[in-house]
Amino acid sequence: MDAQQIGRAWDALRQQGPLVQCLTNIVVAPFTANALLAVGAAPAMVDVPGEAGAFAGIAGGVLVNLGTPYAETREAMLEAARAAVAAGTPWVLDPVAVGGLPVRTALARELLEIGPTVVRANASEVIGLAGLGEGGRGVDARDEAEAALPAARELLRRGVRAVAVSGPVDALLSEDGVVHLTGGSPLMTRVTGVGCALGALTAAACAVTGDARLAAAAATAGLCAAAERAETLSRGPGSFAAHLLDELSLLEGDALASQVRLHAADQA
Amino acid sequence: MDAQQIGRAWDALRQQGPLVQCLTNIVVAPFTANALLAVGAAPAMVDVPGEAGAFAGIAGGVLVNLGTPYAETREAMLEAARAAVAAGTPWVLDPVAVGGLPVRTALARELLEIGPTVVRANASEVIGLAGLGEGGRGVDARDEAEAALPAARELLRRGVRAVAVSGPVDALLSEDGVVHLTGGSPLMTRVTGVGCALGALTAAACAVTGDARLAAAAATAGLCAAAERAETLSRGPGSFAAHLLDELSLLEGDALASQVRLHAADQA
Amino acid sequence: MDAQQIGRAWDALRQQGPLVQCLTNIVVAPFTANALLAVGAAPAMVDVPGEAGAFAGIAGGVLVNLGTPYAETREAMLEAARAAVAAGTPWVLDPVAVGGLPVRTALARELLEIGPTVVRANASEVIGLAGLGEGGRGVDARDEAEAALPAARELLRRGVRAVAVSGPVDALLSEDGVVHLTGGSPLMTRVTGVGCALGALTAAACAVTGDARLAAAAATAGLCAAAERAETLSRGPGSFAAHLLDELSLLEGDALASQVRLHAADQA
Repeated sequence: MDAQQIGRAWDALRQQGPLVQCLTNIVVAPFTANALLAVGAAPAMVDVPGEAGAFAGIAGGVLVNLGTPYAETREAMLEAARAAVAAGTPWVLDPVAVGGLPVRTALARELLEIGPTVVRANASEVIGLAGLGEGGRGVDARDEAEAALPAARELLRRGVRAVAVSGPVDALLSEDGVVHLTGGSPLMTRVTGVGCALGALTAAACAVTGDARLAAAAATAGLCAAAERAETLSRGPGSFAAHLLDELSLLEGDALASQVRLHAADQA
Repeated sequence: MDAQQIGRAWDALRQQGPLVQCLTNIVVAPFTANALLAVGAAPAMVDVPGEAGAFAGIAGGVLVNLGTPYAETREAMLEAARAAVAAGTPWVLDPVAVGGLPVRTALARELLEIGPTVVRANASEVIGLAGLGEGGRGVDARDEAEAALPAARELLRRGVRAVAVSGPVDALLSEDGVVHLTGGSPLMTRVTGVGCALGALTAAACAVTGDARLAAAAATAGLCAAAERAETLSRGPGSFAAHLLDELSLLEGDALASQVRLHAADQA
Repeated sequence: MDAQQIGRAWDALRQQGPLVQCLTNIVVAPFTANALLAVGAAPAMVDVPGEAGAFAGIAGGVLVNLGTPYAETREAMLEAARAAVAAGTPWVLDPVAVGGLPVRTALARELLEIGPTVVRANASEVIGLAGLGEGGRGVDARDEAEAALPAARELLRRGVRAVAVSGPVDALLSEDGVVHLTGGSPLMTRVTGVGCALGALTAAACAVTGDARLAAAAATAGLCAAAERAETLSRGPGSFAAHLLDELSLLEGDALASQVRLHAADQA
């Protein structure tokens, strides 16, 4: 994977405008939809049982985000995930706060059995999903991502095609190995839904490339590049949120390719 | 209907600040409330069974939007619609994505039987609601609205007092005939909830005029005029969303009357 | 209580960044989370039964807001409130629209029995919660808050440690007496969720001070000071919402102490 491939995947996302089904939480649903619209994708929050499965068959990608897993939503998520697998639709699992909380942790593990294309999460969620503990805290950002690598590899062994460990340094893993991305803005953690929007953008990118790790990398790099630009225009998190959507809509593949900071790691 | 009437209806909306009950989806609820607040209306998202009906009796207008039709919400929507009819409160049905998806399509047809004052939807949703097929795609915007006119007229025959077919060209129908509105901004489709907010503004306008088609026209023209102004100030969809709310709050009836582009059609 | 104490409590909130669990409504959840993030707190919308109680035991503060009280959410709210009391976690009740609407009014009274640390509400909601009528309308802002004082004192008698009556003039009561705060911006009522965010900020402040009235005062004064600054930068409610979050993130305790307008009342 190189920067040019990431730029081309980003442009494919912008040009094809895939239909992305989102089953997500009440806090981030608006920002998630707006992030998808900003890059030209078409969000559809079809999250009721009886519709979620049928829609997963026609969507280009599906996001399942566990932020507010109400009983009816849980049923719709399982329905959508099973239908996505049956239809060959790529789907992304974002296991928000999995590990300590029992309802979502049980749901996440049931969803993991169904077989997500990509898991996108922070280090402690990756560790919680893999069942390998509560998540260690490294002394710097690279250490934090590093601490989650054994859990991420466990997810790959269970059939997940790519794992995106989000943090100050992002680690993206598949059977082709690990790459790291640096960049972004500290303001990304001061606006609700930025991480959740990354899950949605990853589902969108999966609709335009069969390389799941590349899809995760394009989404991550695109969001981080837009965030770096937005930060320079912002006084605080309120203006940053608006600028971030503007920059997502303006960012083109060539510019992304020249801005991305990609580091291949030698370990697989 | 002429531009001056639209301007006066807009001013009446701003001056009277009606109470608007919204039963809507998790994605657009914040933007919908903010659009209503921007024009001086008072939003109230009273959407639980046991409260929705009683509130519909005291609201000035009611919006029923089918974006995320959970079981409990469906029950509340039916309760609110029936109570609105019983109390003489105007109510607007926004049948999001109706046609292909079974849960909302069944609900929409049940709501249609109850008798909405206005149906606001895009062309394919109007066609889906009327049960006249999946919706054709015209070669230009006028064709798209045109393709939905038979379905819109079918809704009028079933008792709907006005139908607003939203799109690049808006078509507004009642037994008084069809008018078209042009204008707006392409950015309206890049921010989630703009169309849904139009449904809410239509419900608000119904609270201040007994002419349902005029209410739909005032809401549509006001939103489009504000969007045109907002577009000139915006770098992308993030800044546009904020500017659109600002412009909604600043727009007065006289300015709207001079900006509106209204085209009467000779066919009824 | 004086301005310096308010400034110090605000700084403690910014520096400690407490974990705040929010069980709130679908309309304001994003803005509420963003307001907490702006001041450095960590929002967690853990609102499903089976998780809400366990989380209330580890959160620094809990918000229970009754805006859209679905059946499952009601169950989670009762679970969280009971667990908060058992664990000694402070919790804030925001009884949105309580008084006339039966489902939330019954729930609010059940929650009141459990024992909220703070009740934050407007005058008519305070009156509705105390069961003392429908809420009078005074001829000016001070009168409005004044009309709710008997109801607020009734809540204190039932064990609530502080009551924050929000309005053009805010009244904050505890067994130590009443203080009033003036300031803020009329635009605060033109953006959905500003009042609800105040409830969340109050829960956050309760996590950093054992003085419940001081916590309510710091949250109220901080939000009002940020709103005054944001108003000067804004053309309307859309830009105001973004500026308000920016200003919340920029406001420091010293500046707040010099800006706050606090009026002690002689009556307890």
